[in-house]
Amino acid sequence: MIAQDILDESNAAVSTDHDADYAALGDHLARRGIDIAAIAGQVAGYGVAVPSWGVGTGGTRFARFPGKGEPRHIFDKLADCGVINQLTRATPSVSLHVPWDDAPAADLLAAGEAAGLSFDAMNSNTFQDQPDQPYSYKFGSLSHTDAATRAQAVEHNLHCIELGQAIGSKALTVWIGDGSNFPGQSNFTKQFERYLASASEIYNSLPADWSLFTEHKMYEPAFYSTVVQDWGTNLMIAQHLGPKAKCLVDLGHHAPNVNIEMIVARLIHAGKLGGFHFNDSKYGDDDLDTAAIDPYRLFLVFNELVEAETDPAFDPAHMLDQSHNVTDPIESLMSSAMEVQRAYAQALLVDRVALAGYQESNDALMASRTLKVAFRTDVDPILAEARRSRGGAIDPIAAYRLSGYRARVAAERPEVSGAGGGIV
Amino acid sequence: MIAQDILDESNAAVSTDHDADYAALGDHLARRGIDIAAIAGQVAGYGVAVPSWGVGTGGTRFARFPGKGEPRHIFDKLADCGVINQLTRATPSVSLHVPWDDAPAADLLAAGEAAGLSFDAMNSNTFQDQPDQPYSYKFGSLSHTDAATRAQAVEHNLHCIELGQAIGSKALTVWIGDGSNFPGQSNFTKQFERYLASASEIYNSLPADWSLFTEHKMYEPAFYSTVVQDWGTNLMIAQHLGPKAKCLVDLGHHAPNVNIEMIVARLIHAGKLGGFHFNDSKYGDDDLDTAAIDPYRLFLVFNELVEAETDPAFDPAHMLDQSHNVTDPIESLMSSAMEVQRAYAQALLVDRVALAGYQESNDALMASRTLKVAFRTDVDPILAEARRSRGGAIDPIAAYRLSGYRARVAAERPEVSGAGGGIV
Amino acid sequence: MIAQDILDESNAAVSTDHDADYAALGDHLARRGIDIAAIAGQVAGYGVAVPSWGVGTGGTRFARFPGKGEPRHIFDKLADCGVINQLTRATPSVSLHVPWDDAPAADLLAAGEAAGLSFDAMNSNTFQDQPDQPYSYKFGSLSHTDAATRAQAVEHNLHCIELGQAIGSKALTVWIGDGSNFPGQSNFTKQFERYLASASEIYNSLPADWSLFTEHKMYEPAFYSTVVQDWGTNLMIAQHLGPKAKCLVDLGHHAPNVNIEMIVARLIHAGKLGGFHFNDSKYGDDDLDTAAIDPYRLFLVFNELVEAETDPAFDPAHMLDQSHNVTDPIESLMSSAMEVQRAYAQALLVDRVALAGYQESNDALMASRTLKVAFRTDVDPILAEARRSRGGAIDPIAAYRLSGYRARVAAERPEVSGAGGGIV
Amino acid sequence: MIAQDILDESNAAVSTDHDADYAALGDHLARRGIDIAAIAGQVAGYGVAVPSWGVGTGGTRFARFPGKGEPRHIFDKLADCGVINQLTRATPSVSLHVPWDDAPAADLLAAGEAAGLSFDAMNSNTFQDQPDQPYSYKFGSLSHTDAATRAQAVEHNLHCIELGQAIGSKALTVWIGDGSNFPGQSNFTKQFERYLASASEIYNSLPADWSLFTEHKMYEPAFYSTVVQDWGTNLMIAQHLGPKAKCLVDLGHHAPNVNIEMIVARLIHAGKLGGFHFNDSKYGDDDLDTAAIDPYRLFLVFNELVEAETDPAFDPAHMLDQSHNVTDPIESLMSSAMEVQRAYAQALLVDRVALAGYQESNDALMASRTLKVAFRTDVDPILAEARRSRGGAIDPIAAYRLSGYRARVAAERPEVSGAGGGIV
Repeated sequence: MIAQDILDESNAAVSTDHDADYAALGDHLARRGIDIAAIAGQVAGYGVAVPSWGVGTGGTRFARFPGKGEPRHIFDKLADCGVINQLTRATPSVSLHVPWDDAPAADLLAAGEAAGLSFDAMNSNTFQDQPDQPYSYKFGSLSHTDAATRAQAVEHNLHCIELGQAIGSKALTVWIGDGSNFPGQSNFTKQFERYLASASEIYNSLPADWSLFTEHKMYEPAFYSTVVQDWGTNLMIAQHLGPKAKCLVDLGHHAPNVNIEMIVARLIHAGKLGGFHFNDSKYGDDDLDTAAIDPYRLFLVFNELVEAETDPAFDPAHMLDQSHNVTDPIESLMSSAMEVQRAYAQALLVDRVALAGYQESNDALMASRTLKVAFRTDVDPILAEARRSRGGAIDPIAAYRLSGYRARVAAERPEVSGAGGGIV
Repeated sequence: MIAQDILDESNAAVSTDHDADYAALGDHLARRGIDIAAIAGQVAGYGVAVPSWGVGTGGTRFARFPGKGEPRHIFDKLADCGVINQLTRATPSVSLHVPWDDAPAADLLAAGEAAGLSFDAMNSNTFQDQPDQPYSYKFGSLSHTDAATRAQAVEHNLHCIELGQAIGSKALTVWIGDGSNFPGQSNFTKQFERYLASASEIYNSLPADWSLFTEHKMYEPAFYSTVVQDWGTNLMIAQHLGPKAKCLVDLGHHAPNVNIEMIVARLIHAGKLGGFHFNDSKYGDDDLDTAAIDPYRLFLVFNELVEAETDPAFDPAHMLDQSHNVTDPIESLMSSAMEVQRAYAQALLVDRVALAGYQESNDALMASRTLKVAFRTDVDPILAEARRSRGGAIDPIAAYRLSGYRARVAAERPEVSGAGGGIV
Repeated sequence: MIAQDILDESNAAVSTDHDADYAALGDHLARRGIDIAAIAGQVAGYGVAVPSWGVGTGGTRFARFPGKGEPRHIFDKLADCGVINQLTRATPSVSLHVPWDDAPAADLLAAGEAAGLSFDAMNSNTFQDQPDQPYSYKFGSLSHTDAATRAQAVEHNLHCIELGQAIGSKALTVWIGDGSNFPGQSNFTKQFERYLASASEIYNSLPADWSLFTEHKMYEPAFYSTVVQDWGTNLMIAQHLGPKAKCLVDLGHHAPNVNIEMIVARLIHAGKLGGFHFNDSKYGDDDLDTAAIDPYRLFLVFNELVEAETDPAFDPAHMLDQSHNVTDPIESLMSSAMEVQRAYAQALLVDRVALAGYQESNDALMASRTLKVAFRTDVDPILAEARRSRGGAIDPIAAYRLSGYRARVAAERPEVSGAGGGIV
Repeated sequence: MIAQDILDESNAAVSTDHDADYAALGDHLARRGIDIAAIAGQVAGYGVAVPSWGVGTGGTRFARFPGKGEPRHIFDKLADCGVINQLTRATPSVSLHVPWDDAPAADLLAAGEAAGLSFDAMNSNTFQDQPDQPYSYKFGSLSHTDAATRAQAVEHNLHCIELGQAIGSKALTVWIGDGSNFPGQSNFTKQFERYLASASEIYNSLPADWSLFTEHKMYEPAFYSTVVQDWGTNLMIAQHLGPKAKCLVDLGHHAPNVNIEMIVARLIHAGKLGGFHFNDSKYGDDDLDTAAIDPYRLFLVFNELVEAETDPAFDPAHMLDQSHNVTDPIESLMSSAMEVQRAYAQALLVDRVALAGYQESNDALMASRTLKVAFRTDVDPILAEARRSRGGAIDPIAAYRLSGYRARVAAERPEVSGAGGGIV
């Protein structure tokens, strides 16, 4: 963790400016009839889960260029995640990936407690082969033509649930790469039926208070067809399985030009929005830092979420899911957690009464402007205040750099060489 | 209609070559264990509906460049459609668009009988304002915020059903342009709820033996959001309405790169595939001639349909829906009807036993090749034989040009000037 | 024009809040080392041309839903444009479209002067047929296979130059719809050669102090191929023609996912960036209001432009080009002009020294953040101050609505009925 | 290599059917005025280079699932490539990738001769770090901000040229992954200038009879911007460097919906088409087997190439570039080489005189049909005859499977485990 005096020093350096900015924004919002403290309170209460795999450097099929101090195992990862939450106070939980993060539950619980973190949704992995597994997922997992391979994949998911129960998780996220690379390779319908049968087995083993999140994705690693290719298929799955099954939306898993905020609205309408994997993308599943490419799109998603919050039962899961290829992963995750909070804060500023009026009277220009006024409000002082009020950093990136954390862990964690090529 | 002697003359000119090609193909297919006569029989029994609006020259928001002899009204259109079916024997029915084609039912029936045509699905139109209507659809129709506007749109659909009943139609196709051009303009969820309520009113007035086809489309004329934007929403609608409601798939209404044949498979699995609007496209809803751009994609759609035909209850509606901007619409529709038959014939040639085996053993290369072998078989002689056997033309385009039909009707039908601009 | 007392009244209603916001922003920017007055001065000096056709209600191939008080001719359009500039002080010039706006030069000059407007680039139109023209553009204009048709299209462009010279314009913008709807319809290379020959004829008639802007577009109205389909072809054209020829970038004319700001950078590098048609889009050439969909993308374009401004010879043309289907066109154009100014102001706030340092050291996170800090600064008070300082409105939309201008002109200008259908 | 008796056995099993099919096609083509032997001769003379890396199993960032008998080094790869050419007689050369294939030139020459193969273009690799290199390409190679890193990348390319000269190659293909993942990370213009300077250094070291092929790609591994992002930038590079520099077109490296055959035509017009990396794709750079997804698109590319062949100096390089994740790579490469030949054969069948006439008269329907008639001719017997006539297999896949080659090499080459995960 970062030493308190470093954090204090970092905050002290910017607190005067921050106080001025916060006061000025408070005055401005008061003129708009908004209580800044109330917004800051809502933002302070908001959290997004960090993916354990996000603290390692990512890569592409062409290469991976590791950074300094790469985490060696889940305990290094939990330490890194602890720093993220210490500075941002926005990421109180971690989402584990099995078998990458497999470890004794007691050890995980202890390390989580030490890092001040709880455990969010469990993630199973049947898109890779593990050294000791009898059957390969080369041609699929939950939807494989071979029953034994499907059983192995189901069994792995049950193991994830078991581990998750022991550490206090309440959900299982299932993303599979099953699909095909050639027209004709798979019978779409039979493959889907096999998927549904396997998913039902998992669903039937789900504890009563758990949720099952299934995740759709248009393509990659399969390049002609994917079993759960879009939200329509995902909805069919959730309907087939039952009330504990819901759909997970990863912002980068859609076709070009698709209106994602509308999909969010439709899933809410169907009672099947399970949650999010936040990130940003320009081309495909780029897994870039959240809001790095199109911050207004993220705001529009949150506009739907804030709209739906009037239903007290509405409680989707919020997770980051990114690949950090050219940045320090801790910095990217802190920055992204703040971007999610930013979109939430902006969405809270929308004048919903005025908006509803413009919508009712088809005043498209003023409706659009109502959203834009909220979006272009610089809510940075609100986010900073929410952090500071809970013991975090006014400027987490600055505090992190000041702390020398990366150099410190790099001294403890051996250098990792880049992944060799050949996967082209 | 085309005079019989012209048709005979046209056929005579190519029958020797045709006979040779048909015989050679028969020999080849026999070597593959396929009976050419059986395939030709199935093709001869296949029909696709022609859209009444397709026989007029289409256009874009920039301009329309009419051709010679544009049809003046539904009776001219039916005459043109009659020629299409006379020569191709592949388009036994016409799909009407109201109010464009509104006319006394008795007159329509008589004209249809004269042209040798029956009436396929009715199409309502609430994406345009008509001179005498009290409420405008500028801001929507079935999902409009104003109840009176919605009622007007519902009422129009009931009129379409009424007219359709009188002329023997058994289905109503509903496509609306409702959506929004600005984030914020419409509340996605309330707009969808209004749509569902209006559609339910229409559904509840549907005769017992009718189907309701709802059609999704990603964008255009609305450019930020569309109420029925994709097959996921379309499925939700069909599920909400009931068993007579099914989804219509227009090949050009999807996001870039989307796997359409997979959507077809999913809708079949859900029991909700209503039918098709066939056309082709490279960019958006280009409404180009069927198979003009990607003939293999059309084949892959038919591969799913032939696969599903094992269920005797499976009976989706097949319609063309194209915009002919640079060709003689009659020629394009004849050509497109033949392309649809071609894809059907190719799909019939797939060795399904072998394919299933390759799929089961994950032999992707041979599975792909099994489809390709069927696709690359030149089935033109089969299509020609199916036409000739039922009194049509071996080469419908050649027969049509020989007949001078276009010049003849151009003499009767006054020249139309191009649409003026300003819609940019 | 709007009466001064209305404008004063409108400004008075919001000036106290504005003063407070402007002072607070000034304080904040001072803490960042930025002089707000300097920025406001640069913004006040910035102008974007309005397209004459933009003040009419647009539409799609499906329908057009006119509004109240549609302009009847170029003189009504100039009056509307005058209001836009009066209130925003951001649109000092108008771009004409011939033959839509054809009129005696003296009359145009007088009307322009009355409205306080000068004349920007002339736009020719060979994508529509005019009642009296001998040859049709159905199959192309400058690239038509027929020499007489090409000559007619060239001649029309020369007429546009002639009229433009008489009214003080200094540029001709050429956008054509030439292309094809079917593979094989056109020989790509011969068609391009014909285009180049026709364009050379126009270029050779260009006055010495004029520029020729050619505009690329991926598709529509042609749906298989377009002669000037992308910036690569556009660059080849500009290189072929000579130094007065440059490329015009319409933000909506690119393939999905394309990085437009990078194309801007490349054209700047090649010395061939002619200017912009600003608008926004989600799917194709949607012609939505500027920054309505992706405001960050517009900012990134302006980031390139501000970067290039260090070269004093850099002077691209800035124009709006939108289709207003569901809003009052005057309001949309005012709003869009302000959005362009907003992106410019934000780009001026980028700390370029810091950015260059982060780029040099590959500190991707801080480089990204440097842009984001500028982007999320709410520069609204700067824009408002720039307007007020030059006699415009603090809130142009509010002032316009207060004025009752639309109702006033609606009383003078006859109601227009919606375009009939059939173009589907 | 495959034993001759196996090959004979395989051919014997299908030669009767083949003879019948070839004779029937000859008769049919004769009726169309085409000499089948002439076409077969042209096809027999056509070759496409195989990529050395293509004979290994590919993968994605998520996983790689190796097959049996993976090649261990370039000599295993050359053996596999020898089999491909032995059976297809369509792949007389191999394209090497350095440092993956680095080896003494004499050894390469000997192994190439043994396998009956010559060496096509050399491929450099600066998108991965190698164990012993001083500078990392994490933030770029030829365009890196650091001069020493750029020098290292240039030096590597010079080494590729040197090795290529020793083994008879005549071209260097340069593809780099340089770009950025965040807006602001790189200065587009300075980065491009650094690229041009580095590329000039390579160009200046090129032997007199060599070509330099630069390859554009929209995205991946960089996900916000790529230095050589499209053919426009690629053209600028080739123009900057000089006459030996030309553009390489990989079919999967473009934005969605882009008309690739038109880009081919434009590059031919500019005299800058260097060659191709053939493959197929549905979403991004999927690297699927050639023609697996859209065979008509490949035909349209070859339609341009055959059109351009009238210029005797026109001689682009033809290479495959695919990633085989779910098939035996040898089978996929054989199949793909035949698909390239198929498209070439179909394009040779186009009635170019008729086509030119339809284009001249704007008979879009008949122009389209002229291409389609050629495309839908089943030229399989021609390809088979071209193979057989040169000692290859009538059905290379069948002969290969009959030979047991894969099992044989699997016995010699140790099993490879799947790449571990973590790159997500």
